[in-house]
Amino acid sequence: MSWAFWPIVSIVLSFGAFAIGYYFYRYLVGLPSANEEIDRFGRLIREGAMAFLRTENKVLARFVVGAAAIIVLFVPPIWKTESILGNVAMGITYIFGAVFSGTAGYVGMRVATVANVKTASAAQKGLTHAYRAGFRGGAVMGLAIVGSCLLGSSVIYLIFPNDPNYLLSFSFGASSLALFAKAGGGIFTKTADIAADLTGKVELGIPEDDPRNPAVIADNVGDNVGDVAGMGADLFDSNVAAIAAALVLALDLKQAPFIFMASAMGLLASMIGVFVSNVKEGKSPGRALNRGTYITTGLFFILTLAASLVFKFELRLWGAAMIGLLAGTVIGFSSELFTSDEGKRVKAVARISQQGPAFTILAGFSNGLLSSFPSLIGIAGAALGAYKLCQPLGGDYALYGISLAAVGMLSIIGMVTANDAYGPIVDNVRGLSEMSGLGEEVLRVTDELDAAGNTAKAITKGFSIGAAGLTVIALLAAYHETLTNILGQDILKGFDILDPLVFFGMLVGVGVPAVFSAMLMMGVNRNADRMVNEIHRQFDEIPGLKEGKPGVEPDYNRCIDIATVGALKELLPAGIMAIGVTLLVGFIGGVYAIAGYLAGNIMSGVLLALLMSNAGGMWDNAKKYVEAGHFGGIGSEAHKATIIGDTVGDPFKDTAGPSINTQITVVSLVSSLAAGLFAAFSLFG
Amino acid sequence: MSWAFWPIVSIVLSFGAFAIGYYFYRYLVGLPSANEEIDRFGRLIREGAMAFLRTENKVLARFVVGAAAIIVLFVPPIWKTESILGNVAMGITYIFGAVFSGTAGYVGMRVATVANVKTASAAQKGLTHAYRAGFRGGAVMGLAIVGSCLLGSSVIYLIFPNDPNYLLSFSFGASSLALFAKAGGGIFTKTADIAADLTGKVELGIPEDDPRNPAVIADNVGDNVGDVAGMGADLFDSNVAAIAAALVLALDLKQAPFIFMASAMGLLASMIGVFVSNVKEGKSPGRALNRGTYITTGLFFILTLAASLVFKFELRLWGAAMIGLLAGTVIGFSSELFTSDEGKRVKAVARISQQGPAFTILAGFSNGLLSSFPSLIGIAGAALGAYKLCQPLGGDYALYGISLAAVGMLSIIGMVTANDAYGPIVDNVRGLSEMSGLGEEVLRVTDELDAAGNTAKAITKGFSIGAAGLTVIALLAAYHETLTNILGQDILKGFDILDPLVFFGMLVGVGVPAVFSAMLMMGVNRNADRMVNEIHRQFDEIPGLKEGKPGVEPDYNRCIDIATVGALKELLPAGIMAIGVTLLVGFIGGVYAIAGYLAGNIMSGVLLALLMSNAGGMWDNAKKYVEAGHFGGIGSEAHKATIIGDTVGDPFKDTAGPSINTQITVVSLVSSLAAGLFAAFSLFG
Repeated sequence: MSWAFWPIVSIVLSFGAFAIGYYFYRYLVGLPSANEEIDRFGRLIREGAMAFLRTENKVLARFVVGAAAIIVLFVPPIWKTESILGNVAMGITYIFGAVFSGTAGYVGMRVATVANVKTASAAQKGLTHAYRAGFRGGAVMGLAIVGSCLLGSSVIYLIFPNDPNYLLSFSFGASSLALFAKAGGGIFTKTADIAADLTGKVELGIPEDDPRNPAVIADNVGDNVGDVAGMGADLFDSNVAAIAAALVLALDLKQAPFIFMASAMGLLASMIGVFVSNVKEGKSPGRALNRGTYITTGLFFILTLAASLVFKFELRLWGAAMIGLLAGTVIGFSSELFTSDEGKRVKAVARISQQGPAFTILAGFSNGLLSSFPSLIGIAGAALGAYKLCQPLGGDYALYGISLAAVGMLSIIGMVTANDAYGPIVDNVRGLSEMSGLGEEVLRVTDELDAAGNTAKAITKGFSIGAAGLTVIALLAAYHETLTNILGQDILKGFDILDPLVFFGMLVGVGVPAVFSAMLMMGVNRNADRMVNEIHRQFDEIPGLKEGKPGVEPDYNRCIDIATVGALKELLPAGIMAIGVTLLVGFIGGVYAIAGYLAGNIMSGVLLALLMSNAGGMWDNAKKYVEAGHFGGIGSEAHKATIIGDTVGDPFKDTAGPSINTQITVVSLVSSLAAGLFAAFSLFG
Repeated sequence: MSWAFWPIVSIVLSFGAFAIGYYFYRYLVGLPSANEEIDRFGRLIREGAMAFLRTENKVLARFVVGAAAIIVLFVPPIWKTESILGNVAMGITYIFGAVFSGTAGYVGMRVATVANVKTASAAQKGLTHAYRAGFRGGAVMGLAIVGSCLLGSSVIYLIFPNDPNYLLSFSFGASSLALFAKAGGGIFTKTADIAADLTGKVELGIPEDDPRNPAVIADNVGDNVGDVAGMGADLFDSNVAAIAAALVLALDLKQAPFIFMASAMGLLASMIGVFVSNVKEGKSPGRALNRGTYITTGLFFILTLAASLVFKFELRLWGAAMIGLLAGTVIGFSSELFTSDEGKRVKAVARISQQGPAFTILAGFSNGLLSSFPSLIGIAGAALGAYKLCQPLGGDYALYGISLAAVGMLSIIGMVTANDAYGPIVDNVRGLSEMSGLGEEVLRVTDELDAAGNTAKAITKGFSIGAAGLTVIALLAAYHETLTNILGQDILKGFDILDPLVFFGMLVGVGVPAVFSAMLMMGVNRNADRMVNEIHRQFDEIPGLKEGKPGVEPDYNRCIDIATVGALKELLPAGIMAIGVTLLVGFIGGVYAIAGYLAGNIMSGVLLALLMSNAGGMWDNAKKYVEAGHFGGIGSEAHKATIIGDTVGDPFKDTAGPSINTQITVVSLVSSLAAGLFAAFSLFG
């Protein structure tokens, strides 16, 4: 069979995914709106979100063009390159990566801001309709992400079938966009969320989505730019990075078709899965989300097994992909175990909160630390298992096995993203229903939708951190492969941890995710501080606002502006720091220091990402558990303490934690791309 | 010159140190007490502390005997050993290590509980007298620790000059005692501290050391068992581990005398240093502490340089030790930069606390993450620098250089410990003066003493984490050396991070310090919860207690009991988990997995220890800054927020953070000792 068969199948399936996405979009547009008020608020959110994305993209466009210029000039150095055209093509694939990732996020978010209004309205007809609208809104994101990822990767592979650098460059484009989109969106959303909570819930005692609060629209905008668009860019980036890393290792083995087969089957399984995820009146939407995932997973298992048998792929390769899938599931469920509001750990955090907020923080933080362990074991076990399984095939197959575990874990990402994007959509739905007065019955439905979204979100986060972990292990192997090609097998030693350069790199690498996440959280802190002051100003200066006098409205746009300006100011430094330190380590310590650096970066990155995501999730759900009437319910000491916990958890779980994923991927890709430069120029290397 | 010269000098100097310690003790005993009340409270604290230590030691004795039996049976397996006597000797050196460490801590703490009463009384005569009493109390601890460490190491080396395993076993004895002493003491002290603060300061609004509070004696006992005895065991352990690791690498090179020379000169420098640390009336005690350190450091520099020249040691070895000393200083000062209450970062945390406790937590946590970076760079730079400096000497000299950097950093530990133990002593002094009504003038003096103690403590913590980091790097090299001796140079490959077993070990290793510290903090949380309930019970059931009716006294002993029982219940599981996972990884993954495991453990251990210690220090000092009258002062919103921050920081900086040091050392020593077992029996290795 032609080597081009599976990439072409992938392209065909991508267009199929786009078609389904478009069908869902038309479905949503065709639904009625409940009243004019909700349309107005929906429009405010959509316009705010789009305005932010446009401004952000202008800033990022400059960065992307600058980075592309550097790639054209230096990868490889243009005065030593074999073909200047090749350098230009590298720059172009980089830009394509950024544009594809950005476009998928943009489309997904636009649809999400339509879906929220329509879902709120559908909630008047009951759970079944509301769930379908909300889920289909999320599914567009999932299909857009995976479709454009596969489309881009396949086309680049078809054009440059023998040089993985172009796909690495495409992947780096996607990652660098994701790095900033995730950071910028994460800062925006938590700025607004924290400021709205502190001034509304805590100071005034008004409900979360009260339209009197000047930050309420910014808060809902944030859900879209942070949790939908940012997260979409993040998953796009992991997916394409996994494919790129696998391709680097596959080429010499002539096993590239397997990667596209697995990815294509994953997309097909997701395309079927999104149609069967439905809920009957009176049933649990959480179960429906899970059922969709199970069915997708099962289909993926069967489809890939069948394809492996029919097209005579090595079954060990298939096994490696399945190991990854299994590890993803284990990690997802361990996240759920720690963060589910049904679980005893969340209840224990809620209980001890009666003694005050310090106990809330300590309990959540300790549990966050604990929660990292099963996931670390899961990643470690998957890497070891896939390696050992493929080792008998000889040579580089063992490392290729690890990269396939990452591909396998990410293959059902279409469905996972759909579930995840469902979360912020239904979160918005709740807010919109409250703001536009759709009544108690609708709120009951939206609450049910929302609770399911939270659990789905926790699972996805575990999943995406696990996937990023395995992907960067694969990228480390890809880096080694790239170096072997540059330096030759004989010159390259192993990356011995007792080599002082490797060790040096490792210690520096450990520090980078810490500094990176600190910078983002400090950005949120500063920005939220500014917004709180603005809200106080509005309450002081706009007469009748606090009291809710009819016709008096806050200046929503000022808050959106503050969040936007602040996010744009804070989003570049952290990302540039991460890339800059990588280059510094490379040019000082050389290729061995970079290997250690990547390992250290992965280690502390995965640890901190899991800690922050899971601790944040626990605090959020502990608050919800208290709000459901336990330990004194709303207004009690336990409630106040859990609100403080939740506020701390917000930038943990929605800004810093998930951005670390992208940071470790970006750093790994930079290292692979710049490997030749580090090998040629370095102080100690 | 005889190989035994420097060990003998070390032994002579140890006895000199003991003599000075005894002289200081007699000096303290000779000082008068201010009144009967302070003697009574002092006795309560001393008895509580001694009772805790006795009970703890009974539990630990069982563990130590059990572990010694395992060592006798399996290290090496008794059915394969060349000499059963050797195995028995290994067990005995292990017990000696534990006993030496425990005794030094016990003596130091006993003296500290005398020094606190006498210092409070000396404060009536002014700052000069009070400082001398407080500092000399701490100096006894420093001299006892370093003296007994050198004595034990030298004697064992003289008896077994060619087999470093006995010193490793001695070191493991010291470390396993330290692991539990630090954890147990840390849980005890923070249980009492948090419970006393929450019920006293927060609920009732009474001062920190009000005798009405049933937890007030337990709180002061905690300072002694946690910060004096526990910390002493910790530093003893780092010191002996550094010497043991260096010895493993030195033996083949015939360079062992240098280690004892450097350690002996360090002790000599500290012995002089403790006499010149004095303060004039109206001058700053903080400066006096620093001056003592500078003088000791300068003396150490000169003495070791002179000895190297006179006794013809390689100057590159001397240089490696100096690199370590320099790195220690850099790390110490970077800790100070982040945690000093004069610094702008602490002030910024205090300022943003006006917006509420969530901001306090986020700001401190972010800064804690940031603060890890300079120290990581310092450790990485010291290791790389020492390696490169000694590389021209050939062979294993390069790795030996790293171990000498650790020895160099720890050489002035006598002085550092003296400064550190000064902290909890003067903290107690403040409490005692308040409880026994020594008046405003005395409180002014004790406040000045206390502020200096806090800064010294922050520097020491940075120092001891840095030292532990370098020591475990040296232990990793020692582990490699041990394996080379067991397996032979030809069989042993490097520890390649792309070896899946190494990588597997690394990911598991990363998780262990996280789980370990989580377990300790959860222990504090649970235990403090119990004590808060007991205090509430006493306030409810003892009539007149809350109101401070004369003659009515709380039941102090019940609180001490709760802290003791709780600490003993919580101290074993975390330590056993760490040792158990190490053995599991070794017996499953074999020697390569263990190498990765150690590297991962060091990485996340150093990161988490720095994060927790520095964040905790910042919160503590931000509170003090607000209490000094800034941002509304005592009772303001900022004050309430910083109290919550401080409460979170308490187990961070005094329980979990510093215990991680010991955890990584223990795990490294277990690995070196069990290397032979892992090489012989493992599932995948």
